[in-house]
Order: sequence, then structure tokens, then C-alpha cells
Amino acid sequence: MIERITIIGTGLLGTSVGLALRAAGYRGSIVGWNRSPQHAELARQMSAIDTVAADPIEAARASQVVVLAVPIYATLDFMEKLAGVLGSEHLVTDVGSTKRIITEAGTRLYNTPERAAFLPGHPMAGKERGGAELGDANLFRGAVWLFTDEPEAQRSPHSAELVKGWREWVGAMGAKTLDLDAARHDELVAWVSHLPQFTATALSALLEDEVSGAPELKDVGGRALREMTRLGSSPFSMWRDIAYTNTEAIETALLKLEQRLAYLRENLRTPVLRDEFEQANRFRKE
Amino acid sequence: MIERITIIGTGLLGTSVGLALRAAGYRGSIVGWNRSPQHAELARQMSAIDTVAADPIEAARASQVVVLAVPIYATLDFMEKLAGVLGSEHLVTDVGSTKRIITEAGTRLYNTPERAAFLPGHPMAGKERGGAELGDANLFRGAVWLFTDEPEAQRSPHSAELVKGWREWVGAMGAKTLDLDAARHDELVAWVSHLPQFTATALSALLEDEVSGAPELKDVGGRALREMTRLGSSPFSMWRDIAYTNTEAIETALLKLEQRLAYLRENLRTPVLRDEFEQANRFRKE
Repeated sequence: MIERITIIGTGLLGTSVGLALRAAGYRGSIVGWNRSPQHAELARQMSAIDTVAADPIEAARASQVVVLAVPIYATLDFMEKLAGVLGSEHLVTDVGSTKRIITEAGTRLYNTPERAAFLPGHPMAGKERGGAELGDANLFRGAVWLFTDEPEAQRSPHSAELVKGWREWVGAMGAKTLDLDAARHDELVAWVSHLPQFTATALSALLEDEVSGAPELKDVGGRALREMTRLGSSPFSMWRDIAYTNTEAIETALLKLEQRLAYLRENLRTPVLRDEFEQANRFRKE
Repeated sequence: MIERITIIGTGLLGTSVGLALRAAGYRGSIVGWNRSPQHAELARQMSAIDTVAADPIEAARASQVVVLAVPIYATLDFMEKLAGVLGSEHLVTDVGSTKRIITEAGTRLYNTPERAAFLPGHPMAGKERGGAELGDANLFRGAVWLFTDEPEAQRSPHSAELVKGWREWVGAMGAKTLDLDAARHDELVAWVSHLPQFTATALSALLEDEVSGAPELKDVGGRALREMTRLGSSPFSMWRDIAYTNTEAIETALLKLEQRLAYLRENLRTPVLRDEFEQANRFRKE
């Protein structure tokens, strides 16, 4: 039923979606568009897409499914533009890292019987750097692909079928789907994704201040240091929109970590330290 | 010249030293002792040691080199006991994670022409769990093995030769040796080893409080979460003595990280966030 897919944004995620669809046996056509055309051309050379679209809106109109794989504010822009030109024969879905604002826009602009369907999605997969060149057909294998669909969406039977079809392709790409409320999603990812990232960023920035004068000493830290700072490589461009669209939940998580570190610092020589190690051990055991 | 080595403590490090010595071509005998005899027996079955010593002090007397591979306070205890029975024909060395207190004890109890030599050492290698069963002949390959020897040590020519010989074996095990002042060592490892560990412990303990009610949600975090909490598995028993013997430097590092996280939290929507990401990027680039 899905014969033509347009991927808007051929960075790491968009390119990987194209490659994973092909690896899963998708035989329809895949059109791609990217703000910088040479990256779309790279995705085409990698066979993640068949053709590079000149106009993303026109390409979307000619497809059943549109995958938005651009930063969050760019996703919101495309949602606005596409809502005016697509109808009940279309599905728009996304891969954005925060879901409350995007899901609200979906309710406002999509998901009536006359309009296109919008399915808010978020594959929990990525690398510390982006770019088509890192695209990977196996990126989603074993990963969780979250959906924050609104239960009260009123879709045409045709677009409801497209939603079902896309969910099946996500499973075929090797991901496990999980449905969550959008607000709960943003709270949860603040803990399990955004907090680890901002912690690695703060730790790496601090260590750059403290030990960069002696570059050979970085070797001293070994595997543990490398691992705890790997996410320090993540570019700001990937995280700016996340910080803007999930500010409150990230603030809460960061404040709690600051307090936890202070508690540990004040108890380096008391029995509390044992309790904290044991609580940490439990997190890893389950 | 080194024909007999006694390894006191056949946990991960002690067992790995035995295996790495063999892999590097050491042909002398290796005697091992462990507080719990079944772990020494396991190290023997793995061929990390040739025989299990009934009495570690007697075994040390009959060896040229004694490797202390036990926690820091146990290392200090053995240093006291061995100083009384060993002489200028012996070298004692260790693998403890903090070096100021151990190096001071070495100066007080060893390193005169009549006494045994003591060479404070610290291989920057490990795993998040200990135990002979994880012993690995390649554990030190490519790792840095720090020494915090006192420049003014007055050793007999014989024990000075043993020091030289042991340094050569460390190189043969695949480690890069690096000499540091003991106080500088403790300051440095507070940043590159202890801070990453305590950060992972605090983060894991916090996440256990916040998301343990929904164990399936841990999958959501993916690779980044797993990586940032892997060290949360580290047992308290490995870290207690480190917290006690490097308290001040760890406090300083933790406080600075708390402040850095707060700075980031207060700037989630300001240009400072970009600066912090770029500073973190620099740490990973060098």
C-alpha cells in the first residue's frame, strides 16, 4: 500500500531510515530531500534514496508517507507547510527527540478525517555525530521506537491504514515499538537520554578546562574516561532544539543530579557512600 | 635476575599481572596468595600463578619481587608487615589507585640501602567488576602504568636493579610507564578516574530512584544511557579506600562538576549552551 516515501532530511536518521527500509524489503520508491543538496546526493549514492527531490513539498504530495528527519523546529515548520497541501491520503511522521510540542502541532494541524494523518515518532537510536555518511541499515535493530500518538485522533480509514503500515515497517526495520503519552515521553527522555548527554557535556567541558594543559594525561583515564566523555562529541546543532523544547524537564533532572553529587561529596567517608554504590548497582542489575 | 615473584591478592589486577607476565615471557616462578584461598586456587587453575602460598610473608621472603594487589588499606598493612622481614635483596611494588599515602609509607618504611625497595605503581586498567575470573593477559596492553617513585630514594645497588627490572616487565606486559609526583597523581586521577566513577554512581543511583518503577523504560535510553551508567556496576569495596585516601581532591572535582551542571542548567536557552558544547567537543578532539 505504501508505494512512495519521501524522507525530508537525509542526515544520520533519514539516511538510516532509507537504508533500513531497503534492508527490510521495501520495494516502493524513496525520494529524499535535504537542505544542503550534496548531502541528499550522498544519501542517493549510498542507495538510501532513489532520487533527490528538487522541491520537498511537491515530493511529499506525490508520496503516501512523509518522514520528517530534521531538527525539531524545522519539523514544526514542515508540519505547517505540509498540512496545507496534503490530505487524507497522506501520512506524515517524524523522528524528533522531544514530542510534546510536535504532538500538539499534530493535533492542531492533522488527524481529522479530511486531513493528513500525523504520527509522532522517536527512534531511540543515534550516534554522537550526525551526517548521511554515518547512515546505517542496522541503526534501529534492537532499539526502541517510541510513538506518542493521540488516542482521540480522527483519521480517514485510508490514513489510518497508512499509520498501521508505517508501524509495521518500523518493526521490520528491527525496532521495538512502544506507545507513550507525549508529556510522559518528554519527562522520561529527560532522564534516560537528555540527562546523560548534558552530564557528558558538562564533564567533558570541565575536564577540558582542568586537564587540557597536559594532553598525554588523557590517556591516563583509560576506558572509563573515554566512555563517560564520548557523548561530549555531540554537536550543539543536534541538541539546541532539545534544550529549547524540553527545558523544564531537563532543568529538573540536572538539579537532581547536582543534589545527588553534593550528597555523595558530603558523604565520601560515611556509610552513605556504600548505600549510594548499592543503589547504583541495582540500576545496572535489573 | 627476577626469579621468583609473589603476588599478594589474586583479584582482577593480581591475576592479570600473573597472566601478563607469562604472556610476556617471564619464566621464573610466581607464587600467589589471597585472603580467600579459593580465589588464589582459581588464579592457579588459570595459570596466573604456579603455587598458592600458605603464608604471604614467608612467600615474600623467598621472592625477589612482591606485588601488592589488594585494596589500599590492606596494601598499607602489608607494607608494614613486610618492611620488618624483607631487606635490600627485595622489591615491593603495588597497584593501588591512590598514591600519596602509599608513597609516604614507602619513604618511611623502605628505600634505604639496608631496607627493601618500594616502588609505588598504578596501572590505569581495570574493569567495572573485580575477581580472578576476569583476569586477562592483555589488560595492561596500551594502558598507562603510573609510577610515583620518590627521586631521593637511597637504594642498594641490588634493589635498584630490581626496580629497573620490574619497570622492564611492566613495559613487556604492554603498558606505557609514566612517572609522576604522588600528590600530582592523586589530583590528576581525581579528575580523570575518580570523578567519572562517582558521576556514574550518582547518575545510576538517581535513575534507579526515578525510573526503576518501569524497568522496560531502561531500554529506551539505548547505548548512551548504558555507557554513562556502566560504571554504576562498580562495587563499593573497590572504591571505599579510594574515597578515604583521596577525599579532598574528589570533593574538589565533584563540587566543580556540580557548579558546571548548574551553569548548564541555568543556560539551556542562552548562547552559553553552545559554548559549553564546543568546549566539550574540544576535549574529545585533542
